[in-house]
Amino acid sequence: MKLKTVKITPIAFKDPPLLNAAGIHEPYALRTIIELESDTGRIGLGETYGDAPIIELLRALQPSLIGLDPFDLNGLRRRVQDTVARTQVSANTAYKLAPGTDPAKNVQKLYSALEVALMDMQARHLGAPLVDLLGGRARDAVPFSAYLFFKYARHVDPSYPDDAWGETLTPAQLVAQAETMIGRYGFQSIKLKGGVLEPEQEVECVKALAARFPGMPLRIDPNGNWSLATAIEMGKRLDGLLEYYEDPCPTLADMAALHRATGLPLATNMVVTDMAQFRENVSANGCQIILSDHHYWGGLRDTQLLARMCEVFGMGLSMHSNSHLGISLMAMAHVAASVPTLSYACDTHYPWLDPDEEVVAGGHLRFHDGAIVLGDAPGLGLEIDQDALARLHEQYLSCGIRSRDDAAQMRKYRSDWSGKAPRF
Amino acid sequence: MKLKTVKITPIAFKDPPLLNAAGIHEPYALRTIIELESDTGRIGLGETYGDAPIIELLRALQPSLIGLDPFDLNGLRRRVQDTVARTQVSANTAYKLAPGTDPAKNVQKLYSALEVALMDMQARHLGAPLVDLLGGRARDAVPFSAYLFFKYARHVDPSYPDDAWGETLTPAQLVAQAETMIGRYGFQSIKLKGGVLEPEQEVECVKALAARFPGMPLRIDPNGNWSLATAIEMGKRLDGLLEYYEDPCPTLADMAALHRATGLPLATNMVVTDMAQFRENVSANGCQIILSDHHYWGGLRDTQLLARMCEVFGMGLSMHSNSHLGISLMAMAHVAASVPTLSYACDTHYPWLDPDEEVVAGGHLRFHDGAIVLGDAPGLGLEIDQDALARLHEQYLSCGIRSRDDAAQMRKYRSDWSGKAPRF
Repeated sequence: MKLKTVKITPIAFKDPPLLNAAGIHEPYALRTIIELESDTGRIGLGETYGDAPIIELLRALQPSLIGLDPFDLNGLRRRVQDTVARTQVSANTAYKLAPGTDPAKNVQKLYSALEVALMDMQARHLGAPLVDLLGGRARDAVPFSAYLFFKYARHVDPSYPDDAWGETLTPAQLVAQAETMIGRYGFQSIKLKGGVLEPEQEVECVKALAARFPGMPLRIDPNGNWSLATAIEMGKRLDGLLEYYEDPCPTLADMAALHRATGLPLATNMVVTDMAQFRENVSANGCQIILSDHHYWGGLRDTQLLARMCEVFGMGLSMHSNSHLGISLMAMAHVAASVPTLSYACDTHYPWLDPDEEVVAGGHLRFHDGAIVLGDAPGLGLEIDQDALARLHEQYLSCGIRSRDDAAQMRKYRSDWSGKAPRF
Repeated sequence: MKLKTVKITPIAFKDPPLLNAAGIHEPYALRTIIELESDTGRIGLGETYGDAPIIELLRALQPSLIGLDPFDLNGLRRRVQDTVARTQVSANTAYKLAPGTDPAKNVQKLYSALEVALMDMQARHLGAPLVDLLGGRARDAVPFSAYLFFKYARHVDPSYPDDAWGETLTPAQLVAQAETMIGRYGFQSIKLKGGVLEPEQEVECVKALAARFPGMPLRIDPNGNWSLATAIEMGKRLDGLLEYYEDPCPTLADMAALHRATGLPLATNMVVTDMAQFRENVSANGCQIILSDHHYWGGLRDTQLLARMCEVFGMGLSMHSNSHLGISLMAMAHVAASVPTLSYACDTHYPWLDPDEEVVAGGHLRFHDGAIVLGDAPGLGLEIDQDALARLHEQYLSCGIRSRDDAAQMRKYRSDWSGKAPRF
């Protein structure tokens, strides 16, 4: 079996005006859909970031993939390394919030995008769910958390219609958002994207959630937007309320100092995002819980590697998300199902996806009591709705956004916005 | 596809009187051959230690494997953990040289024995070489080293005929052994099992090898039989001659002190043999090269895990061997072929195996220029010669050996032998 075609389709999908430390989500989020086909007619699906640099890299990689044996992941890695070494890509330096935009992670990002699609093809060839190639199920149902955001009611450009969620800037509005999301999907953990309001206000929001959902695990993620002093003070106020305290401070040294000062379990997807940083964290003990993300940790097998390394070094493991569609959701679910030590509910932006903006056939994937339940369909168990894909690609072509920039978008609301962190 | 039968066959094969730090090889070495068959008629082969405790564990595990999906390695791990937790096995405390006899490694050993056989079955089901399920080939040919031993000409019991190798106790005899082995198999690296003669004599032997085979990578492995002071002194004499210096001292602390004192690259299969010890070594920097061995590191996937962890923490990776047959050799070759960072020739006892004592059809596997070249046959590419297996099982039943004990065997030659280490 050899790869015959590699189709790379950038798409844009509607995104609500969600607030974060860097700024605000633009009206459209970008992703890339990868469709592979073998000489035997097998397909394989992948999904990754949609910023210009990754698309340039995918297109540079594309010709070298034709003829590749889909089981030859070592061959994929060599081709990816060669492509990244010889390809000059436009830099996306504006948006530094997520490791997905870090050019130093281009090998891992590019490898992951194709590894998932190749493993989907492998599993379809085998006639088995992808999780079987990852060692089988440690669980059938993968729990996700309710991922709450502060948000405006509408985008700055009045041509975009209001979304159904409305404004969320107060404890009462946040509790209402949580009630809606939990009522709809059954989530049994809550994550709050913080670093937006004054820290004291965010602490009040966490307290309101804790009062409304007693016993439910809660997390707050200020995305490195709190100074060490602020994080220590807020940590004291949050003590006893949090399952873990995610990325309050922007550096590993600050996280280590915060842990020494408060003893709180600290989680990260910002200061431990690759193996070199993992190694530093072993010495520094800055973070006790690592948020995995196959899109930038280097794929599904490397997520399993990270899981085992966390076990060896006594760290917990959770899972990070960016805005994504169903292919990424199912890839996250398959690898999460295979990892016995993943003991936290995974993050997902999926509830923020407009139900009409999904590219997989059948539309929005369903959560059962807050979990994705793996079925027995081969591979990821998904097919592409080609009409939907074509529509979202048209939206990509017409929307004008080519690289995510939450800070520039925020300057449309507040012209003095710097995006400098930590702000508080 | 489900497991239908699990056949566990202990065997004994003739072994020459090879000397090591603990004593001397007995006239027979023990192994266990595992044959799986699925409800679809697929087979899967495995090979592991043949000491009584592992056979007891395999037999205790056996009933729980029937019905297992061969892709369900998480399910295998759970069954292995349950079996080890509930099974009292006879202790083999006499022989402590190799981690294969350590009861603390029972989960990893038991898991590995079945993981290899299940992955062989998976790959046969897929119609692909096993290496394809490990991410494909980083290399087609896996180099092995010439594994030299000091040895007596004959076993103490005169009823065993002399082997063809003769005595090796002097530099000249050792050079002759190397010439024979390299001439026959084409090896391009040399490993000397030391810890046997006076250290000064062993250094002279290394010098003789270096003179006879200029430029060929050389290693010596005294198996923890040298004190720190001896190892420092011999290290000075060996400086510039060794590719790496393997387990001269018996503790991680001594290895760390030796590395600080000499700067020589130190390798181990004695003080870093599991993940807890790996973690200690990260802090101690006792060993710079880890000798993997899928039999006790927990299988082929966990050997890949170890390889990646060595890469992350800046350690080199090589491969250890005990006395073994062709199934283990091919399992080693498949995983070694899949690991790009395995940059040393692997150890193997295979040249010491009598050509008439192999259980795989076709007899002794062939080295090409010192390497095992992977073919395209499904799985490990091996079939069992059932007549040979039955003969070696009869030999097991009649030989009387049930657990390896090189020290007890040495006391038949030297009644005062204690096996205490370090002896020098």
